[in-house]
Amino acid sequence: MTLISLLDYASVLVFAITGALVASRAQLDLVGFAFLACLTAVGGGTIRDQLLHRDPVFWIADPTYLAVASAAAVVVFLTAHRLESRMRALIWLDSFALAVAVAAGAGVAMARDQAPVIVILMGMITGCMGGLMRDVVVGQVPLVLKQGELYVSAAFTGAAGAALLEGHFESPTVPLLTCACLTWILRAGSLHFGWHLPVYKSTPPKS
Amino acid sequence: MTLISLLDYASVLVFAITGALVASRAQLDLVGFAFLACLTAVGGGTIRDQLLHRDPVFWIADPTYLAVASAAAVVVFLTAHRLESRMRALIWLDSFALAVAVAAGAGVAMARDQAPVIVILMGMITGCMGGLMRDVVVGQVPLVLKQGELYVSAAFTGAAGAALLEGHFESPTVPLLTCACLTWILRAGSLHFGWHLPVYKSTPPKS
Amino acid sequence: MTLISLLDYASVLVFAITGALVASRAQLDLVGFAFLACLTAVGGGTIRDQLLHRDPVFWIADPTYLAVASAAAVVVFLTAHRLESRMRALIWLDSFALAVAVAAGAGVAMARDQAPVIVILMGMITGCMGGLMRDVVVGQVPLVLKQGELYVSAAFTGAAGAALLEGHFESPTVPLLTCACLTWILRAGSLHFGWHLPVYKSTPPKS
Repeated sequence: MTLISLLDYASVLVFAITGALVASRAQLDLVGFAFLACLTAVGGGTIRDQLLHRDPVFWIADPTYLAVASAAAVVVFLTAHRLESRMRALIWLDSFALAVAVAAGAGVAMARDQAPVIVILMGMITGCMGGLMRDVVVGQVPLVLKQGELYVSAAFTGAAGAALLEGHFESPTVPLLTCACLTWILRAGSLHFGWHLPVYKSTPPKS
Repeated sequence: MTLISLLDYASVLVFAITGALVASRAQLDLVGFAFLACLTAVGGGTIRDQLLHRDPVFWIADPTYLAVASAAAVVVFLTAHRLESRMRALIWLDSFALAVAVAAGAGVAMARDQAPVIVILMGMITGCMGGLMRDVVVGQVPLVLKQGELYVSAAFTGAAGAALLEGHFESPTVPLLTCACLTWILRAGSLHFGWHLPVYKSTPPKS
Repeated sequence: MTLISLLDYASVLVFAITGALVASRAQLDLVGFAFLACLTAVGGGTIRDQLLHRDPVFWIADPTYLAVASAAAVVVFLTAHRLESRMRALIWLDSFALAVAVAAGAGVAMARDQAPVIVILMGMITGCMGGLMRDVVVGQVPLVLKQGELYVSAAFTGAAGAALLEGHFESPTVPLLTCACLTWILRAGSLHFGWHLPVYKSTPPKS
């Protein structure tokens, strides 16, 4: 449980920063920063907990998560203007948040003895939904669906790694850390080296 | 239960195809196709199950639904370029998915002995919410709210038909098939013949 | 419980009118009006009930809420053209709906003996989420996130007032009425006098 809490905290913190950065691009006030930070930070985990009927939801059981997210929003409000490129910071922090959130989501499902396919899905949902809500709410095309980048694919691969390794280890530590690393490596490789899967082309060139 | 499962499978399959078609218009990769297909396919039913506190949610109880949706996404990824008009295919498939999903939603509520008004609403929610999420996530005006077309109205009429007939039949077969047919006929009539209800006009012409 | 029901009814009614006004701006038909009215009216309270695992959700327990929202939609459909400025009416009605919805949300959490931070959050969620969904669904920038206005901040202050006063009064009447008044005064002051918190400025002018 401790590892899952740690992953949850890390993903909440980093996703909160990305939410606050989006708020800074939308020029909101401090409460708007905190709102968007909290939505992004706990959005994915909330959907996971609702789907698994976990009662209470993790941030109602322990409101510290929201304190962490709000504190992150305050710090970003005061310091974001020092960043050279907020968009760049946003995208890279989002990649870290994705990686730990996928692991946290998969870990919760594993702790509840769900089938491998549900472990994979809870990883993907926890990782992707917070950022998706953040972007939809401010009216931007979600990072999740950005054409030609690995995002959902990275989450899927990481979560599938956790599900595959789950049967071979007593504790969830190795599967979950592998999951986070795998997710981040794929996402970072996509951002830095341009790794991608073939995208759909509607009209193949005719010779 | 068998009829409801069948309707659920049919709506999952056809909604998944519409989700994948939207993914093709957004030029996503294969995992993006599967993501949008699954979101569209199980979105409405998931909200229905959450509202009725059905535990577990239908696709957690039986992940085959997601396998069906993902398989549909793969097929669309490989074949969509052969379609003459993907928009046209999308709209017509969406009308079939709407019809069976409304019936599936109404059927679940009827099986849980909900009041007629809840039967109607669960039909409408199951039918409309998957497509609504699909369109909102990719930043398009939802088909559901397209001006001058019957969509929510078709879902409402079909679901109301099921609720009306429910008391007169022992099995849910006739009410649910009537519901699906009624919904589809209204939606199809709106698409093909331009049937519509009066829309709001803000400034009536002054003589 | 009676006060909370009253607040719930009031917020459902007024939010329904705002949803119908947005439907009129999108030129939907009557069923579209009712759909958007219901979504706006019960959206925030539904998320609150789901998060608190209240079973059944308030409008499933008592579908009268939806009848009220639908009736409001019909009235707006027939009369909205008489308004001189629908946008102005929308914004001011939304401020009333926000105020009562925040109080209703805080009241439900107080009645379930939640911690003060959860009382505050349920107030904010109930107040803000219905309008947020209304605006996101029709593809507009949410009022909630409008730059340079008190909205989430007003909800936060009102809900915090309720949480602070809760321990000092036997009945919830004084805390909840204070909450509604405080929220509305701040929101109205922001609309009429331009009250606002400092917004984030990315590039402070260099001398």
